[in-house]
Amino acid sequence: MKPLEDYLVVDFSQFLSGPSAGLRLADLGARVIKIERPETGDICRHLYTSNVIMNGESSVFHAINRNKESFTADLKNEADRQQVWELVKKADVVMHNYRPGVMERLGFDYESIKAVNPEVVYGEISGYGDVGPWKDKPGQDLLLQSLTGLTWLSGNDGGPVPMGLSIIDMLAGTHLAQGILACLVRRSVKGEGALVQVSMLESAYDLQFEAVTTYYYDGLLPQRTEKNNAHAYLGAPYGIYKTADGYMALAMGSIPQLAQLLKCNALLPYTEVAQAFHQRDEIKAILADHLQSDTTESWLSVLQPADIWCAEVFNWDTLMQQDGFKALNMVQEVQMQDGYQYQTTRCPIRIDGELLTSAKGSPALGQDTDKILQEIKN
Amino acid sequence: MKPLEDYLVVDFSQFLSGPSAGLRLADLGARVIKIERPETGDICRHLYTSNVIMNGESSVFHAINRNKESFTADLKNEADRQQVWELVKKADVVMHNYRPGVMERLGFDYESIKAVNPEVVYGEISGYGDVGPWKDKPGQDLLLQSLTGLTWLSGNDGGPVPMGLSIIDMLAGTHLAQGILACLVRRSVKGEGALVQVSMLESAYDLQFEAVTTYYYDGLLPQRTEKNNAHAYLGAPYGIYKTADGYMALAMGSIPQLAQLLKCNALLPYTEVAQAFHQRDEIKAILADHLQSDTTESWLSVLQPADIWCAEVFNWDTLMQQDGFKALNMVQEVQMQDGYQYQTTRCPIRIDGELLTSAKGSPALGQDTDKILQEIKN
Repeated sequence: MKPLEDYLVVDFSQFLSGPSAGLRLADLGARVIKIERPETGDICRHLYTSNVIMNGESSVFHAINRNKESFTADLKNEADRQQVWELVKKADVVMHNYRPGVMERLGFDYESIKAVNPEVVYGEISGYGDVGPWKDKPGQDLLLQSLTGLTWLSGNDGGPVPMGLSIIDMLAGTHLAQGILACLVRRSVKGEGALVQVSMLESAYDLQFEAVTTYYYDGLLPQRTEKNNAHAYLGAPYGIYKTADGYMALAMGSIPQLAQLLKCNALLPYTEVAQAFHQRDEIKAILADHLQSDTTESWLSVLQPADIWCAEVFNWDTLMQQDGFKALNMVQEVQMQDGYQYQTTRCPIRIDGELLTSAKGSPALGQDTDKILQEIKN
Repeated sequence: MKPLEDYLVVDFSQFLSGPSAGLRLADLGARVIKIERPETGDICRHLYTSNVIMNGESSVFHAINRNKESFTADLKNEADRQQVWELVKKADVVMHNYRPGVMERLGFDYESIKAVNPEVVYGEISGYGDVGPWKDKPGQDLLLQSLTGLTWLSGNDGGPVPMGLSIIDMLAGTHLAQGILACLVRRSVKGEGALVQVSMLESAYDLQFEAVTTYYYDGLLPQRTEKNNAHAYLGAPYGIYKTADGYMALAMGSIPQLAQLLKCNALLPYTEVAQAFHQRDEIKAILADHLQSDTTESWLSVLQPADIWCAEVFNWDTLMQQDGFKALNMVQEVQMQDGYQYQTTRCPIRIDGELLTSAKGSPALGQDTDKILQEIKN
């Protein structure tokens, strides 16, 4: 059985960060009920990317909210509030990602819920924590990347380059899921509930923990290479290079050995280990020039047998043709209540050799309200 | 008390992915004992970034391994193996990130440990899973980014751009920690142990779950904008822009409203919502040109009061001067057994309003061996 079977999560969260935590808990076996406002629901339902509409709603919503139920309630209507109270009384986990103060005004904050459900594990994600002058700013992924220094690590030397995914939303979601799970462990031993708080700012900063520790030591800001940067703190050859027919990633490897294997005489003078870092711009420029003279396959056929860490650069089209990818069964097909089917990813964790899959697609707004009301009555 | 107090984690892992999971468990309160080979130890001790050496070892090692103990054992020596057996018998969690087959050869695989410790939660991270033709390839961060399509999402239209951190290592670590925690929850209810498996390939793919779901629907590869890309699937203005004195991030906002607020007449024709996506290259080019005519502060002073989602682009120097950052106390000072002190980040999760901090720095190689041997005897 899945590890969280029989656990009930009541999830007030919207957009990406909170719902991505809910998705992980659902995949681990919990029953996750989304509390959504009537008529509009989770704003993510209409947060389109690429203008792609799947079954009337955004692809992002479908990706994040599969394997969940939807219960509609107007949190300002007394009858609806009573129903929600019945649900949170029974919940093992309650979570939300409203800005600080909103749940207090709605009356579903931790202290209020704890009063009727002392063992509840209550999770919340804010943008910037609930103290300090930034606490009321909008917690949006790109803004958090920009504020936390993260944009000076990717791309080549020059201006800021953000990471091209909602990475901070997802990290805050994984951190919330970790905190909730840890507190469920404690609850099972001690019978205690808990308040778990995560902010996008702290998650964005935590992501940089290795590099920031170096910064605390020497006070130097990250220096990316002029070209072929893949990590501001690593020496040559670390980067992606153009070849005669595509691109190739080259991670670690001694420069003299590369000189020999690649038959690149211009690299021969770089015999000292320290040069791989201090003269990395020069070395990368030589490599970038040389590697364009032959195909990716040809270079890999020389480097891989010598245990140099290198790889093809695939896109999704080419990745999905690879047997090494197919062997992992990463794709799952799910189905909505109205029969609409779509393909998406699955949970990346295996338990006891089993994949954590579920055929359940995302819920239509309020599709489970009546069923849940019946359960509350019984 | 911290949620995992009284839990014992015996951690055979090295480098980044496994140890980052161990760090999270340690911060949540577990006792984490690193099993390291005599003399060399975790290879990460000498995996330098920027050639920064702190107290004789790499800054990365110190960042990831604070709050842990170190026990040295030669896993091929019978006397040492017996000591390790005593430890794993008592462990709540055992984890490693060797390539598939290595732990089986060493005899510390899940089946062997389960035979003497049936309730153990055993976690492992591989590069590419333990099946399929890629299972023996080196699991290295840049190679995983390159193989999974991730490099076509960041940076502008053109070649691949990796994310400039060991992001796949860290994600695999967070996924492993989640799986282990979920199985500790189940164990507390059912008394069952578990095998938790994560691979860097699955973690790298999971990171792209929203975008990949769109790809499964329309089969189109991501299209980044020519300039100012911040997310291949979002329309204008989403991006970072140069101003007269620096840079500014601009997330969401209607183009007609931006035209008015920024006094940018060239944007006035873009009145349709769909244009923000389909003509995003044009719109971004106009914005990029216009925003260079005034300072970041000046633009923000117009946009922020109008609730447009925008922000400064800080680096670590400027970030750390902000009261909004200081209010979160993200920096912690830790101390090694020999008295060496260093600053690093802390766990991004708060429990019951408390930070999960610990003054304990990273362990010198084998510093806890004698103490642990005494404990085993008693």
